Amino acid sequence: MRFGEGVEWGVHVCALLAAAPPDRGLSAKALAEFHELPPAYLAKHLQALARAGLLTTSRGPRGGYRLARPAGEISLWEVAEAIEGSGPAFRCTEIRQRGPCAASAKACIRPCGIAAAFAAAENAMRKVLEKITIADAAMQAASAADSRQMAAFRAWLVRAAT
Amino acid sequence: MRFGEGVEWGVHVCALLAAAPPDRGLSAKALAEFHELPPAYLAKHLQALARAGLLTTSRGPRGGYRLARPAGEISLWEVAEAIEGSGPAFRCTEIRQRGPCAASAKACIRPCGIAAAFAAAENAMRKVLEKITIADAAMQAASAADSRQMAAFRAWLVRAAT
Repeated sequence: MRFGEGVEWGVHVCALLAAAPPDRGLSAKALAEFHELPPAYLAKHLQALARAGLLTTSRGPRGGYRLARPAGEISLWEVAEAIEGSGPAFRCTEIRQRGPCAASAKACIRPCGIAAAFAAAENAMRKVLEKITIADAAMQAASAADSRQMAAFRAWLVRAAT
Repeated sequence: MRFGEGVEWGVHVCALLAAAPPDRGLSAKALAEFHELPPAYLAKHLQALARAGLLTTSRGPRGGYRLARPAGEISLWEVAEAIEGSGPAFRCTEIRQRGPCAASAKACIRPCGIAAAFAAAENAMRKVLEKITIADAAMQAASAADSRQMAAFRAWLVRAAT
């Protein structure tokens, strides 16, 4: 059970956009450059975040990517789901209905207990990630940064923001 | 974020072994037949469960796979981890230490807040799955079965158990 690397990238990128001036956009190229991420792969994930309504994108002067909502209203769960797709982590294929001792369809009206257990577990995980927002992630990153890093960040933003 | 199908198979197989007579084994072939699973793929997962110390396997008369511990002492988490491997669901690759505004190694002594958030979420999921055992899964399956299915199961065991 793994989150793909796109989830790590997506959360970091959203936290970066949360720290950018709200009237400025950041290009896909700048977002890739910031964490030295492969531009083509990152672009795919940025498009997924935009499709999910978490980012907006526009062309022209002051174009680029921005958060579509305040950072405090975007949860880590939403970012993970945008990147990885929705649907349960445990996909029940109803193997109890197969084989020489198959359960009848009638006996399987209720979900399989095994699938229900994994759904409860995923729900517990989801609840944690729903409570943590991009604003939390951005604040945590800022509070960990030293003055040298903050100065480099401000200088980079001046260069990179459209 | 997905559990592989091997996790579904592994939990069902362990629940099946929990329902088998404790002095009998079930062959990899019989375990595959029970849920119509592809034998070669299932064999790989059975070997992983054995390596993790959840199943024992022996050759000869009365050989085959058995649970290595009482079903009430094997959690769904252990089965999932045996199949999928251990290690965090969210792999932090420290991208905060890359790029033009990289955090210094000194500023990164504490884990990245994003990785910490995902670790807390995984921990919540793990806690749920640690509390649910193979005995629970087997009991739930038995309680959902009707008399026709139970009779078919008993007849199958007589044929299949070594």
